Amino acid sequence: MTQPIALAVDFGGTSVKLAAVSPSHDILARTSFDTASAPGVDLWLDAVTAASRTLLASLPPSSAFSAVGVGVPGFVDFAAGFVHDLANVPGWTAVPLADRLRDRFRLPVAVENDVNAMAAGECAAGAGRSFRDAVFVTLGTGVGGGILVNGRLHRGAHSMAGEIGHVSVDLHGPVSPMGIGGVEQYVGNRHIVEYAASRLRRGTPSALAAACSGDYDSLTPKHIAQAAAAGDPLALETFDFVAMCLASMLASVAYVLQPEAFIIGGGVANAGPVLFDPLEKHLAQRLSPHFLSRLRILPAALGADAGLVGCATLAFQAIPA
Amino acid sequence: MTQPIALAVDFGGTSVKLAAVSPSHDILARTSFDTASAPGVDLWLDAVTAASRTLLASLPPSSAFSAVGVGVPGFVDFAAGFVHDLANVPGWTAVPLADRLRDRFRLPVAVENDVNAMAAGECAAGAGRSFRDAVFVTLGTGVGGGILVNGRLHRGAHSMAGEIGHVSVDLHGPVSPMGIGGVEQYVGNRHIVEYAASRLRRGTPSALAAACSGDYDSLTPKHIAQAAAAGDPLALETFDFVAMCLASMLASVAYVLQPEAFIIGGGVANAGPVLFDPLEKHLAQRLSPHFLSRLRILPAALGADAGLVGCATLAFQAIPA
Repeated sequence: MTQPIALAVDFGGTSVKLAAVSPSHDILARTSFDTASAPGVDLWLDAVTAASRTLLASLPPSSAFSAVGVGVPGFVDFAAGFVHDLANVPGWTAVPLADRLRDRFRLPVAVENDVNAMAAGECAAGAGRSFRDAVFVTLGTGVGGGILVNGRLHRGAHSMAGEIGHVSVDLHGPVSPMGIGGVEQYVGNRHIVEYAASRLRRGTPSALAAACSGDYDSLTPKHIAQAAAAGDPLALETFDFVAMCLASMLASVAYVLQPEAFIIGGGVANAGPVLFDPLEKHLAQRLSPHFLSRLRILPAALGADAGLVGCATLAFQAIPA
Repeated sequence: MTQPIALAVDFGGTSVKLAAVSPSHDILARTSFDTASAPGVDLWLDAVTAASRTLLASLPPSSAFSAVGVGVPGFVDFAAGFVHDLANVPGWTAVPLADRLRDRFRLPVAVENDVNAMAAGECAAGAGRSFRDAVFVTLGTGVGGGILVNGRLHRGAHSMAGEIGHVSVDLHGPVSPMGIGGVEQYVGNRHIVEYAASRLRRGTPSALAAACSGDYDSLTPKHIAQAAAAGDPLALETFDFVAMCLASMLASVAYVLQPEAFIIGGGVANAGPVLFDPLEKHLAQRLSPHFLSRLRILPAALGADAGLVGCATLAFQAIPA
């Protein structure tokens, strides 16, 4: 008998990446299409169907998919396979996506939030593969989270758990539609840049001024990470601030859940030691030794493939035993 | 066949309460002894053994215990039934309590942290009995928590999860051995009193001055709750502050776990509407409608019996299927 193959669909705001994935997490074939090229649910389903044929064409003859797993950028009811709303993709409100995919493919289907899918991937085959209880953190425009409890994603009462970007680090902090003082208001990409830019505008000397040719609005977290790695004091201060805010949130989550590990991915995590070194320092100030000594802080290992691997993992779990 | 009976042992810093409890959570008989009267593990085991005979004597002849459940005030390794340390009871460091109790009683034994035991009780037979995912919060000297996930206590990687009193509400807040800005540093009994007393010392007029006969150090949360219920502005302001700090923590926990309900017990929770009304108001400012509309805030229902009922629940769960 041939091995089962999952059709993994990592649905992003810019592109939709698809892969054929083996049960041992190997990516056997991959393809993608631009999200804007297939607007709305019907055209999206057509594009996914076409892409699935492209994938099969590069596999051995008689290969077939056994299940479909999709990660979507928004609120999902996992149990029902229902997409409530995708913030950055028009035409995706109240979509019974699992039903629509089952109609197309006649296969078991899993539909999950994209960050939860990444968490599932990292925990199945990446930095979290040896843990039963872990929290995956992704740093980017916002701060996302996926929680593994006893080896399974913890989705909470209505599939919305793991929104760690909204954990408050200051009860008098900035107000957003999601609350007051959420950590994302301090360490989201835009806020990291603003921290450095506001000091540059006040005249703090820094290599960052040259890195962005004096156009502070064009600064990116990557500029700041590079300057920090080269020893620039303002860039190092910026990452120390980011690490302090993250440490406050991580300590709170550790006291609630006591995971074995935090696994940290996303663009900002690529900064490496200029982020992870101060993060360890601030965590040591914010967690009792009982907790700190039993906790690992690890960078994510799968990079951009975490979502695809996770979608495949969830697809295989959707196959009835 | 007679019904099984649990020996429930609620081990407090002041007294040890024991009960015979039925599988339907009825307390069939109860007794207690002073903690100080049985110092150290051996005398404690003797006192528990004697108390168990007292309980049996008031039950029908031929009654027997089927399992033992103990809630202890400190750090416990649940899986091993091992007591790491009890903060307020001398002589209880590194005690293999489940083993010792099994040697005595020749019965299945569960040993759990006292707040987790209360959470198990409220969720089995109290305010949480209709929920699979709930968080129990106890307000007193400190702030404790017990987390129910899929109908079972979530203990985390090393049985220490649920320490919600150390969730930070201010990354620049007061420093304690447990971290920085933990909510317990704002709403623990002593801190509630200090909030009101500091304003009384600065001359804020309040009925509280008379309630404690001008001796501000003798104020208690109960004085403040009574004055708030009578409309005293300073007392109301104090509870509004407590509610704001609690709401910040509860919102963070809700974003992480998305429970169906928070169940709030402990002495301060007896304040009733002067606590719960501002708590609802502040939560509405700190949680998105997606989360708020799917969340219940409920007072605990079992009062001082939550621990005994929970110990019995855990004892019955320890019986092999």
